[in-house]
Amino acid sequence: MTTGTATAVARAEVTLDAVPTPCAVVDRDIVAANAARLRAHVAGLGVALRPHVKTAKSLDVARLLFDGGTGPVTVSTLAEAEAFADAGFRDVLYAVGIAPDKLGRVTALRERGVDLVVLLDSAAQARAVAAAGIPALIEVDCDGHRGGVLPESAELLAIAQTLGDVRGVLTHAGESYYAYTPEALAAAAEEERRVAVRAAERLREAGFAAPVVSVGSTPTAHAATDLSGVTEVRAGNFVFFDLVMAGIGVCSPRDIALSVVTTVIGHRPEKGWVLTDAGWMATSRDRGTAAQPVDQGYGLVADLDGTLIPDLLMSGASQEHGTLTTRAGSGADLPDLPVGTRLRILPNHACATAAQHEAYQVVAGSRTVEAVWPRVRGW
Amino acid sequence: MTTGTATAVARAEVTLDAVPTPCAVVDRDIVAANAARLRAHVAGLGVALRPHVKTAKSLDVARLLFDGGTGPVTVSTLAEAEAFADAGFRDVLYAVGIAPDKLGRVTALRERGVDLVVLLDSAAQARAVAAAGIPALIEVDCDGHRGGVLPESAELLAIAQTLGDVRGVLTHAGESYYAYTPEALAAAAEEERRVAVRAAERLREAGFAAPVVSVGSTPTAHAATDLSGVTEVRAGNFVFFDLVMAGIGVCSPRDIALSVVTTVIGHRPEKGWVLTDAGWMATSRDRGTAAQPVDQGYGLVADLDGTLIPDLLMSGASQEHGTLTTRAGSGADLPDLPVGTRLRILPNHACATAAQHEAYQVVAGSRTVEAVWPRVRGW
Repeated sequence: MTTGTATAVARAEVTLDAVPTPCAVVDRDIVAANAARLRAHVAGLGVALRPHVKTAKSLDVARLLFDGGTGPVTVSTLAEAEAFADAGFRDVLYAVGIAPDKLGRVTALRERGVDLVVLLDSAAQARAVAAAGIPALIEVDCDGHRGGVLPESAELLAIAQTLGDVRGVLTHAGESYYAYTPEALAAAAEEERRVAVRAAERLREAGFAAPVVSVGSTPTAHAATDLSGVTEVRAGNFVFFDLVMAGIGVCSPRDIALSVVTTVIGHRPEKGWVLTDAGWMATSRDRGTAAQPVDQGYGLVADLDGTLIPDLLMSGASQEHGTLTTRAGSGADLPDLPVGTRLRILPNHACATAAQHEAYQVVAGSRTVEAVWPRVRGW
Repeated sequence: MTTGTATAVARAEVTLDAVPTPCAVVDRDIVAANAARLRAHVAGLGVALRPHVKTAKSLDVARLLFDGGTGPVTVSTLAEAEAFADAGFRDVLYAVGIAPDKLGRVTALRERGVDLVVLLDSAAQARAVAAAGIPALIEVDCDGHRGGVLPESAELLAIAQTLGDVRGVLTHAGESYYAYTPEALAAAAEEERRVAVRAAERLREAGFAAPVVSVGSTPTAHAATDLSGVTEVRAGNFVFFDLVMAGIGVCSPRDIALSVVTTVIGHRPEKGWVLTDAGWMATSRDRGTAAQPVDQGYGLVADLDGTLIPDLLMSGASQEHGTLTTRAGSGADLPDLPVGTRLRILPNHACATAAQHEAYQVVAGSRTVEAVWPRVRGW
């Protein structure tokens, strides 16, 4: 587990021309713009934003979301919860169904004054959580994507009965990642809201307080136009965005704050290949756009300043080699990219690409590296 | 970059029942058996084994291959070269085409007494490498998989001319990962040998010494029956093996030394799902078996002792959730796996799954954790 904070780069004038490749680069101006956009949208709907820190896993990115301070966060691992607690975050939701043998670490954090809340969807979990005296949200399923009980189920009330003290309900519209029109995204957001509010109503009718109604995913957080009855929205990916989000129309490629800097190491002109030193170890194996109308391979290719090179894709990857080709059918000519040329790869899935790296080289609209931000690792 | 060494576990009786999940587990008895098998095979063919450390990225695993000592190794990053140099390894091949701006780090290692050799396949690289006085192998293409010049090409001799001092040639039968019969694997091994030897002969006819003829991949290293003219064999994956290797018949699932320990966190009986706390963050996004005759999803599922549960797969993954289902068409019943049950997931691709973890929990045929072995990280 890494719990570092922002490290100022002491050396003057380190630029992306000189950092060892491959490496992950974050443009903090883009992060700030993405954050401002979602904060304004969610504030306009009258609810709180509880960002999910699982994408960046960075205290520095999180502080950017809270104007340098702290605020409510969602975590995907107890390592994140511990790192954020160490940095002063006191309102933490662990949004993965709790395994009973993790409750010791949860209790240790709560005894340090962190209001760490867990998630569950079964009576077995509820018994263990109630015995440990830990507050919990009940996970409710709005689209068949993953876990959760149905909002009209008997299980919902049975779990609440076992739990006793019910903090509230949570749902996540995971299927919204496969919604390709504004109408489909808006419908997913409304269904997420409706299901969560309905589950909370049933709990309250049965006498449980259930003050928290938590919804969210990056697509639905942006698409929602009415969050009546909801108390908080979760979203994580929006800090960096990626080609999957661009593919469903939630952002444009210009809003993608994370990229991988790579160096050209060879050519196979007879095959139309440019070879680079960024393979899947640097980009991850995530091929999320393969399921979308436009498959972006392992990522789009930009020059070192971030300007996209038209119709150039990272189409193949082995562990430490990337293969760049022109998009099939585009008729584009392969650009002249001599050995040593540096490029940026825009990722399919920011959460997965970021996870391949120890830290981010941080820029702000130029090639100058202004800081190195570490990531929280492990579980 | 992590350069640690084996850490004895001070606490008595830590077992896989108690380690935080998800985590990566390595059975060192299986690693030792896999290593003994390949060492004996390669020794029988009269050539040296230069293991590729990119899979385990572990000094402890490498020492196991050399009976506690050091020996010739292949690396995929300069971070690996530096970590192995720190640990006393002096004969190191960096088998990714060299970017000229990495030569400073190569020179720094050579000045420390490490015989670090680089790889190239272009005149541009050869000019930079010759100017820096660094020895190099010329990459030769045997199957159109990635980089390299053709063995009969004029380029081969032109690069040698630019280089002056040619250490030798290297080829890698990357397409052997898609060979599904013993005959196809043997043919890939023979073609890899033939191409490398032919390229070396052309260089020698032109007056270059080219003493090194380096071939290898895990499939071809095991399939080769004649390595006349070859001086060394590289292979990396064999230390752990994985389901892709089992799918092409190079190993059986029982030979897989790496697995991910996970805990059951929920159920969706109406969908036939068991949910776990190991998502793609723990297994990687690698779906290598999707291209094979038998698709193993994100991995096969075993009990905590490593015994496979018939027809149970990890069929889905989000960041921190895995979904287990029975194999489609198998007719198998979903086993009873209550919340809290611990399981092991056998990986599609050991290199990718291992890369998701900081360290390995090391066992030896039982649940007792005997050591924690760190990994080298970064570039």
